[in-house]
Amino acid sequence: MEKPQEKSTPTSSLLLAFRLESRPVLLIGGGPVSHSRLIHLISCGSHITLISPTITSEISSLISSSNSSPFPSKITYLKRLYKGESDDIKVKDFSIVLTAIDDPIISKETYELCKFHRIPINVADVPDLCDFYFGAQFKKGLIQVMVSTSGKGPRVGAMIRDIIEDCLPEELESSVEGVGILRKELREKVPGIGGDKSKKRMEWMKSICDAWGLDNLKLFKEEKIREWVFINGWEKDRVVRPDQIPWNEMPEEIRIQYRKGMKKDKRVGKLDVGGTEMFFGLLGWVLGTALGALFMLGLAMLISWYMSHKS
Amino acid sequence: MEKPQEKSTPTSSLLLAFRLESRPVLLIGGGPVSHSRLIHLISCGSHITLISPTITSEISSLISSSNSSPFPSKITYLKRLYKGESDDIKVKDFSIVLTAIDDPIISKETYELCKFHRIPINVADVPDLCDFYFGAQFKKGLIQVMVSTSGKGPRVGAMIRDIIEDCLPEELESSVEGVGILRKELREKVPGIGGDKSKKRMEWMKSICDAWGLDNLKLFKEEKIREWVFINGWEKDRVVRPDQIPWNEMPEEIRIQYRKGMKKDKRVGKLDVGGTEMFFGLLGWVLGTALGALFMLGLAMLISWYMSHKS
Repeated sequence: MEKPQEKSTPTSSLLLAFRLESRPVLLIGGGPVSHSRLIHLISCGSHITLISPTITSEISSLISSSNSSPFPSKITYLKRLYKGESDDIKVKDFSIVLTAIDDPIISKETYELCKFHRIPINVADVPDLCDFYFGAQFKKGLIQVMVSTSGKGPRVGAMIRDIIEDCLPEELESSVEGVGILRKELREKVPGIGGDKSKKRMEWMKSICDAWGLDNLKLFKEEKIREWVFINGWEKDRVVRPDQIPWNEMPEEIRIQYRKGMKKDKRVGKLDVGGTEMFFGLLGWVLGTALGALFMLGLAMLISWYMSHKS
Repeated sequence: MEKPQEKSTPTSSLLLAFRLESRPVLLIGGGPVSHSRLIHLISCGSHITLISPTITSEISSLISSSNSSPFPSKITYLKRLYKGESDDIKVKDFSIVLTAIDDPIISKETYELCKFHRIPINVADVPDLCDFYFGAQFKKGLIQVMVSTSGKGPRVGAMIRDIIEDCLPEELESSVEGVGILRKELREKVPGIGGDKSKKRMEWMKSICDAWGLDNLKLFKEEKIREWVFINGWEKDRVVRPDQIPWNEMPEEIRIQYRKGMKKDKRVGKLDVGGTEMFFGLLGWVLGTALGALFMLGLAMLISWYMSHKS
């Protein structure tokens, strides 16, 4: 049995985003792990065959809600034990196979079957019988992030995932959406896959992203901006920066959005006066006033002492 | 042709960490995209068959350095065109297939071949001919993170990746290592896969992670700590918190490490006095002193005026 994580030069995993829409997936087992797998598979729109003599109530309600929704995912539930090699359901008919059962013998048999047919398999909680791992992941609109710890600890992965989720700016989704629309329109206006045209398109998009910066990219959700950038940028073979846009000719709501972004940018370089600074200012003021008063009192006493002695 | 990203209910991709150590991978093409694929594949330790009539100088040096290193990855380079279905190299002999060539006809043919044999394939820059996408990713020790934008823009994905890379604490790697060692030792001491034992092991590890917190988990790199936690925690069926460890009995360097972590934790709740606060304090002091002095001067003048009038 290979244990790559225990070698002196540990190898990485290849992190991939698998498209499983309308693809057949075999899921064996009906417990909590199977439930979490099912949630992922449904959001991918895959066609799931689930085999298990029993299922949790969560899985049961997931099956009924998923099959009645307009979502492209389908679940076929077979209420029985999976028999391994002799089963009528054959692993070779599926894109991927996932098992989450407490039967090491059937798990191993299924792994060997998948290995023979080159079908990627994950046997829950048995790293050595996995072609791939599930990492800790989250989804925020169109953005998906996965954290993998090379099998060193799923809980730590989840902790790191939470840190990442907290540190991503709120408006990121709008930016991804904006770029997505610009890119899609450009592909429609300038079709062609592979070759020079697609290369030029990719490079122009990359330059636009760099010139506008993550925060401003959300402005591409506005048709007027996309149109202007296409005519004055792409068609003239140049990269247009946001400060080159004739903002006065744009509708007011777009102008306001842009100015808001600019203000935010400028604020970074300025002094941020908050409660702590106010407190220290006030403390200095009070102490200073007291000292100033004491000093002048002393001076006044000195003068009056001098005057009284003079007289 | 399916275009999942253009539907009203967009489906997610399934993010996975693929183990490719010692697995056969077919890579067709010798340009810059192929080069970036190669870097990933080498770090995974896969056995790569590369077909292309020409390769960039970067790929060429990658081939020679990789084949002479102790790293488990191997590259077999075939200096010729890939002929698709009629080629001697058959896609069904590989775990995954990647193409990055400017030939749409061969690309499509390869995709159909892979579809027939259920071999996962990625045709660079042609989303519709991809079973999986590469997201923007980075590696930090044992931690791997991938950002996917559902094909909406690789550049934005890379920008988000950079934000994430900046916001992860420096010492994270040590914590992942610490948990990894604790987990591995526990598996050796309490073997068994599947069933109740592995479930109990998983639950105990999860509780330990939550009780110690991400920052303290690096302390498990110390054998003494692992030993204490195993004897007083696992064997007594309890979850030990870091404040229950008899730190006085631990070697000094471990104690110092723990105290350092504690200090850092406490600092968070305290006032952070920096340049800005000093400036405001000083400003208040100066203004306060001036005002106090002016006030007393005024008082002194008033008194002296009163005195002189009285006399």
